[in-house]
Amino acid sequence: MKYRIEKDTLGEVQVPADKYWGAQTERSRNNFKIGPSASMPMEIIMGFAYLKKSAAFTNCDLGVLSSEKCDAIAAVCDEILERKLDDQFPLVIWQTGSGTQSNMNVNEVIANRAQLLKGLEIGTGESFLKANDDVNKSQSSNDTFPTAMHIAAYKVLSENTIPNIEKLRDTLNNKSNAFQKVVKIGRTHLMDATPLTLGQELSGYVAQLNHGLKALKNTLSHLSELALGGTAVGTGLNTPKGYDVKVAEYIAQFTKLPFVTAKNKFEALASHDAIVESHGALKQLAISLNKIANDIRMLASGPRSGIGEILIPENEPGSSIMPGKVNPTQCEALTMVCAQVMGNDVAISVGGMQGHYELNVFKPMMAANFLQSAELLGDACTSFDKHCAQGIEPNYKRIKELVDNSLMLVTALNTKIGYYKAAEIAQTAHKNGTTLKEEAVRLGYVTPEEFDDWVKPEDMV
Amino acid sequence: MKYRIEKDTLGEVQVPADKYWGAQTERSRNNFKIGPSASMPMEIIMGFAYLKKSAAFTNCDLGVLSSEKCDAIAAVCDEILERKLDDQFPLVIWQTGSGTQSNMNVNEVIANRAQLLKGLEIGTGESFLKANDDVNKSQSSNDTFPTAMHIAAYKVLSENTIPNIEKLRDTLNNKSNAFQKVVKIGRTHLMDATPLTLGQELSGYVAQLNHGLKALKNTLSHLSELALGGTAVGTGLNTPKGYDVKVAEYIAQFTKLPFVTAKNKFEALASHDAIVESHGALKQLAISLNKIANDIRMLASGPRSGIGEILIPENEPGSSIMPGKVNPTQCEALTMVCAQVMGNDVAISVGGMQGHYELNVFKPMMAANFLQSAELLGDACTSFDKHCAQGIEPNYKRIKELVDNSLMLVTALNTKIGYYKAAEIAQTAHKNGTTLKEEAVRLGYVTPEEFDDWVKPEDMV
Amino acid sequence: MKYRIEKDTLGEVQVPADKYWGAQTERSRNNFKIGPSASMPMEIIMGFAYLKKSAAFTNCDLGVLSSEKCDAIAAVCDEILERKLDDQFPLVIWQTGSGTQSNMNVNEVIANRAQLLKGLEIGTGESFLKANDDVNKSQSSNDTFPTAMHIAAYKVLSENTIPNIEKLRDTLNNKSNAFQKVVKIGRTHLMDATPLTLGQELSGYVAQLNHGLKALKNTLSHLSELALGGTAVGTGLNTPKGYDVKVAEYIAQFTKLPFVTAKNKFEALASHDAIVESHGALKQLAISLNKIANDIRMLASGPRSGIGEILIPENEPGSSIMPGKVNPTQCEALTMVCAQVMGNDVAISVGGMQGHYELNVFKPMMAANFLQSAELLGDACTSFDKHCAQGIEPNYKRIKELVDNSLMLVTALNTKIGYYKAAEIAQTAHKNGTTLKEEAVRLGYVTPEEFDDWVKPEDMV
Amino acid sequence: MKYRIEKDTLGEVQVPADKYWGAQTERSRNNFKIGPSASMPMEIIMGFAYLKKSAAFTNCDLGVLSSEKCDAIAAVCDEILERKLDDQFPLVIWQTGSGTQSNMNVNEVIANRAQLLKGLEIGTGESFLKANDDVNKSQSSNDTFPTAMHIAAYKVLSENTIPNIEKLRDTLNNKSNAFQKVVKIGRTHLMDATPLTLGQELSGYVAQLNHGLKALKNTLSHLSELALGGTAVGTGLNTPKGYDVKVAEYIAQFTKLPFVTAKNKFEALASHDAIVESHGALKQLAISLNKIANDIRMLASGPRSGIGEILIPENEPGSSIMPGKVNPTQCEALTMVCAQVMGNDVAISVGGMQGHYELNVFKPMMAANFLQSAELLGDACTSFDKHCAQGIEPNYKRIKELVDNSLMLVTALNTKIGYYKAAEIAQTAHKNGTTLKEEAVRLGYVTPEEFDDWVKPEDMV
Repeated sequence: MKYRIEKDTLGEVQVPADKYWGAQTERSRNNFKIGPSASMPMEIIMGFAYLKKSAAFTNCDLGVLSSEKCDAIAAVCDEILERKLDDQFPLVIWQTGSGTQSNMNVNEVIANRAQLLKGLEIGTGESFLKANDDVNKSQSSNDTFPTAMHIAAYKVLSENTIPNIEKLRDTLNNKSNAFQKVVKIGRTHLMDATPLTLGQELSGYVAQLNHGLKALKNTLSHLSELALGGTAVGTGLNTPKGYDVKVAEYIAQFTKLPFVTAKNKFEALASHDAIVESHGALKQLAISLNKIANDIRMLASGPRSGIGEILIPENEPGSSIMPGKVNPTQCEALTMVCAQVMGNDVAISVGGMQGHYELNVFKPMMAANFLQSAELLGDACTSFDKHCAQGIEPNYKRIKELVDNSLMLVTALNTKIGYYKAAEIAQTAHKNGTTLKEEAVRLGYVTPEEFDDWVKPEDMV
Repeated sequence: MKYRIEKDTLGEVQVPADKYWGAQTERSRNNFKIGPSASMPMEIIMGFAYLKKSAAFTNCDLGVLSSEKCDAIAAVCDEILERKLDDQFPLVIWQTGSGTQSNMNVNEVIANRAQLLKGLEIGTGESFLKANDDVNKSQSSNDTFPTAMHIAAYKVLSENTIPNIEKLRDTLNNKSNAFQKVVKIGRTHLMDATPLTLGQELSGYVAQLNHGLKALKNTLSHLSELALGGTAVGTGLNTPKGYDVKVAEYIAQFTKLPFVTAKNKFEALASHDAIVESHGALKQLAISLNKIANDIRMLASGPRSGIGEILIPENEPGSSIMPGKVNPTQCEALTMVCAQVMGNDVAISVGGMQGHYELNVFKPMMAANFLQSAELLGDACTSFDKHCAQGIEPNYKRIKELVDNSLMLVTALNTKIGYYKAAEIAQTAHKNGTTLKEEAVRLGYVTPEEFDDWVKPEDMV
Repeated sequence: MKYRIEKDTLGEVQVPADKYWGAQTERSRNNFKIGPSASMPMEIIMGFAYLKKSAAFTNCDLGVLSSEKCDAIAAVCDEILERKLDDQFPLVIWQTGSGTQSNMNVNEVIANRAQLLKGLEIGTGESFLKANDDVNKSQSSNDTFPTAMHIAAYKVLSENTIPNIEKLRDTLNNKSNAFQKVVKIGRTHLMDATPLTLGQELSGYVAQLNHGLKALKNTLSHLSELALGGTAVGTGLNTPKGYDVKVAEYIAQFTKLPFVTAKNKFEALASHDAIVESHGALKQLAISLNKIANDIRMLASGPRSGIGEILIPENEPGSSIMPGKVNPTQCEALTMVCAQVMGNDVAISVGGMQGHYELNVFKPMMAANFLQSAELLGDACTSFDKHCAQGIEPNYKRIKELVDNSLMLVTALNTKIGYYKAAEIAQTAHKNGTTLKEEAVRLGYVTPEEFDDWVKPEDMV
Repeated sequence: MKYRIEKDTLGEVQVPADKYWGAQTERSRNNFKIGPSASMPMEIIMGFAYLKKSAAFTNCDLGVLSSEKCDAIAAVCDEILERKLDDQFPLVIWQTGSGTQSNMNVNEVIANRAQLLKGLEIGTGESFLKANDDVNKSQSSNDTFPTAMHIAAYKVLSENTIPNIEKLRDTLNNKSNAFQKVVKIGRTHLMDATPLTLGQELSGYVAQLNHGLKALKNTLSHLSELALGGTAVGTGLNTPKGYDVKVAEYIAQFTKLPFVTAKNKFEALASHDAIVESHGALKQLAISLNKIANDIRMLASGPRSGIGEILIPENEPGSSIMPGKVNPTQCEALTMVCAQVMGNDVAISVGGMQGHYELNVFKPMMAANFLQSAELLGDACTSFDKHCAQGIEPNYKRIKELVDNSLMLVTALNTKIGYYKAAEIAQTAHKNGTTLKEEAVRLGYVTPEEFDDWVKPEDMV
């Protein structure tokens, strides 16, 4: 492989000749061979592209950067956003905890790529753009990385997680409405209970998702606060007046998301409570989705030795050894995602709690876990919606058979003959394998007519 | 010990003669000898007292309970609320997951205590109040227990957690204002960085707590929704028309908290996402508080071999072997609480994710963890506020010594001479153990006058 | 209330006249009003009693303590171990993270109680025993508290957790043997699969518990290492030669457990990896038990609309509104305990990871969580064994009905006619609601005789 | 793109013409668009290659597979192991929880690739190898996937995690020996304490890693048990006699690792406690490593306003804004990995606890988290060893300055003048900013000669 020489404040480094990155990126590549390469999420790189462009515009507006340099920076940022430079970002999550090296990776790529776009060579002579002095002007890793985190997080939530959970919620709501009259047995403690309709059962899931979505949206305001303008420790050293507000406005304009500058920059560097807060809501949604998916696979279990009250789509052969088997695979994928999100929440919490003084140095790990959770939840809900929820149908025959046979319909008699006598009827029918009506009449507590009049599943829902 | 005979639908049970509870409580005592006795939080019992009284009033208003019975129920509920009957609730958290046995414990105690208040005997003859048919009228464990959970949770948050965190926040805010001019060294990566003021540093903590409090308050709306009126599976079977709305109004009136009936009762029984959501905010606050307490103990570390920039109160001898040692014990208590809250969050999440069909049966465990977290956070913040935060003072001498000596003041030169030359100055001073000024001048990058003019810590904050 | 004056190095403190504790305990009571009082586990106090007595014996043997003082210390330790002084330990978990205040609580109680046993007054004149110089001789909180933790942890594991899980394991093993011939349908993905016997199914649970018990026992060696002799920072400052080995021998003798002195005292103070390690095994057991309990309640679900393959004891009325309902309450208590243990594992991990330099200051929190997990698991297994596992019986009729009806018996044909034809038979029977045999013959793939010969559930297990 | 038609029991599917996979792989690709493609760890695919080859050999030995077919299967498995077919495995973690689709992916690739190696076409005519009947012979996804998990887990532990942690342990041990005489101040509660040597301090880290490695090795025995031979539900249906033992022997032979057949196959399918157990040990190591890395960065903090007792290598410029800054970046990468492992432990626990009946369907998620933790820990320890630990050097000047200045040396006087007088000396010196000796003499408790004789840091370690 061919190399060129790049320099930083610690000296010279060999860099692959065909790459735009510089000395600091290459040092990081060599010093952090941890896990698969290029694991730093591309969403973070995109976040950097938005903010570098916005910083350039702001610096230019405020008179500290020439418009020529500003345009050069913006041009490369646009290339990054068009995903033309994806192979220029080789660094891993497991680097410095401030993400400095990824910030420098972006700075170096912009400077060198701009050099080429100018028709100049890289690695030799004076650079048109300096990575630190121009591209990173009015910035520090300490305020850019958290800004990139918030941009990436907000984007994935608004483009994937939220709309896709909403779609699943809508499907479940449609099903709930469609099955509003399908009376079925209820189950508490996994045991037979009084009836409800399948529509009512599904409405509980809809309510869970609605609450979870509301909780998630409540966190967006904290996520909308950007650290940019705080620079090294939150004081905004080396930024021109008005910079923080203006740069947030440009970011809002370019991303079309309602970003504002953080009121307190010290908090925005030293903690990542906004990430903790928002991921807490993702975890809540995971908990809800786990319940929903688990219910659905139990309701669909069978075909002959399970509950079998609903039918779900048969998407693929279920077994490599048992012919004809079809499994609730979408429920499985979704519940695995839910478990992952619960784990990610702990990773994020452990990172979030360990900020020291002016900086939290668990940034890349927290970002990576957040983005994984948000993307997996969005994707898994889409998959679950399309390949499972939309196809849910009641197994009317089975539902009717079970509800007709239930002992818990006896609850309707509580208000007529009291809890104790009702219990006696149910227990006797259970012991004898008979029906409630038989025993109710035999015990002399009700007449057959009263029983038929009082015990109607459809009136109990 | 003397016993009397009590009965339930499974038969007869011996109960201590001097206790008001009945057969089902006693069965639970015998069947669940798990951990210390009476571990079911009294806050839950108080929640039941509020709701049983409210249910009685509502049942009476709606014509399904006589006013004589209503008054009898209310009278015992008031005794419970006055903490006169604490020794009547012997059950443990680790019982049935619906909390049915604690609901019955309350029902039985109310029925038997009312019997005595009527001047009648218990355990013999007809009961004036029937535990199931009267005290539990229009109710099920499945809607009462979650209602008691929400009442207990909302009360502890509004009476302890929130006001006590706010007090700590206010103290930190006062300190932040008081120390707004105290310029000190900043630290990122635990390494010396550009300066900020002690007031700015503390303002980050204030912002963290403000964000956390806002997040916590965002969850109150979900907690304000009460399951009561859903009865066994959420359909409201065996409740009179209008019951759910009215009973929530009574609970709101008696607790002076803004409770309303849950829009979807199926969600309110089958999941406890409100508890998950609200505890998620408690966890966020724990994460913030851990960062704050950890910073404070590091800043106060010493007295001679640590950071030593602040002084905290000396509350007790710190060591049983090292004479004269004083330790940041309030920070330690608070961070232990934070770790507990993080653990409780996982316990609650694991419980919350495992609802089955119409019922989640991890209710008592979830409630106990929530209440512990909320109480510990409130208490620990009070303790930390009173015995630590209020006494924080700058160690002016040490602060000045460190800031004057810092190499990172060189950052102020970036905009004057560029990042690379500035780095060279800092590195040289570091290597030679000299001052920035000496090296800056020696290297010929600035004049002494320029240095003094450009590098002023107080202008860098 | 009457008070006396006690003193420590910070000055005078008023202490309730009827209590034996001194100034430092009282300061802690006042400075740490966090959660319920006296929450420090009594098992820790017992651990202290063992070690204080052992230290006194060792100090006496090694000539640094008079035998009169040694006897006096030992006498009070014996009273503590006989549980005569339980009300002398009012401190909470949420105190200093080294547990210094509980160490001093024990020191003070021993000194003052010895004073009384000598017939002298307390709070006035010279003390016969000095809390720091005599009772705490050759000790520091930093080595005594972790020693008390290990003693308490090892004792609860060996006296409660391990034997009680073994009892449950034995019960399940007996059931497994008893039901070795009961052929039932298997279920994978919650869907019908090839058959196995109920005995085989239960044998999996036995294997899980055996593996978990082995994992737990593997951790005892680390727990058997005692920090005592390390004093303040692990160097053993102020201890006589040979002290650490000898004091561990006395502790081993008094507790009848195989304690030894830790090879590396620095590790034993600065980390609590032994607690982390051993609790990791408790968490593994919780995970196993959750699976087992969950299976059992699903297998017992019904009575008419569930799986219903096994019967479990009816211990109490299951519902306050649904008469005649019986629930798997022991499974619920056990799974709630499992969730708690999973949460406690995170609390312990978060504490364990945050040691600083020579000391971890999350000791009381880690101890309390460990002891709770160990006790709850032991108690819950006892309860589950006695009130559920011992009563498990097959529902033969239901089991036979389901296995006879199953489509997955078709798997036996794979090796005769290939996976694809077998799949076609199962799918057709599923679609038509017919039997495998009918379709197998109709499709012409086997003769009736071949089918009967090849598809025998009892040969498939 | 060009396609060919492939078939499975549900019908026809279009597959990219240049890929070897078949219908079931393609269905999974289409049905599970969750997260990045091809996320199923290649280590799992390698595990499958080992086991498919071993199964072929065993089937051949036992007379149920021709040697021609056996050779064909083995040839493709070898290609997979040589990493020639990496692009044939496009599936994601988030598929069916049994991993059936990845098992079929392997089966299909082997069958089609073998077809090509025979010089035949794929997607048309009779296959030489049938994916289900030949490649999957005597197997089920339910026993192959957990077998692949154990192979992959054991390999990464023995090839990466364990040796690399051992290397770091050795480095720390060498440093501990080298610095055995460097007396430094100890710190407890982050506060100055009695002295110890730097070698002693580091020895605690060595002991932590030794304990952790022992704990990890204790888990290997459980991991060495293979599910293969259990087929669909653990009964071993459709396997020839002796198959399970023999196939484990082949796997042991090919992997050179001590695998054996699991004694209880029901446990091996329905739970993944071996993964839970082994990851518990990884979590313990993460907790230890977090403590170690955190200590090291605190000890190295500065350069002028921190602790500064040790020097660590300067690997890269630390700040994009603060010139000359060097940060403890290896500590940061390692502690981020530790946080991730703690999160992964919860994901694995949540998956492990949710097995249902005969199968746990969280397999791919559990495997992916385990492999990530094991790889990250191994890689991060290598990185930390090479780029940080090996370069640790004492800052002798700073160490001496701090120890000489310490107040806690007063502890040496406890045994001479008692705890109370010693405390008075320390407190007075602290208040007056003087030395211990000055105050000790001034207070008249010791002579200058006694002080010099009794208070020697080097004798206190």
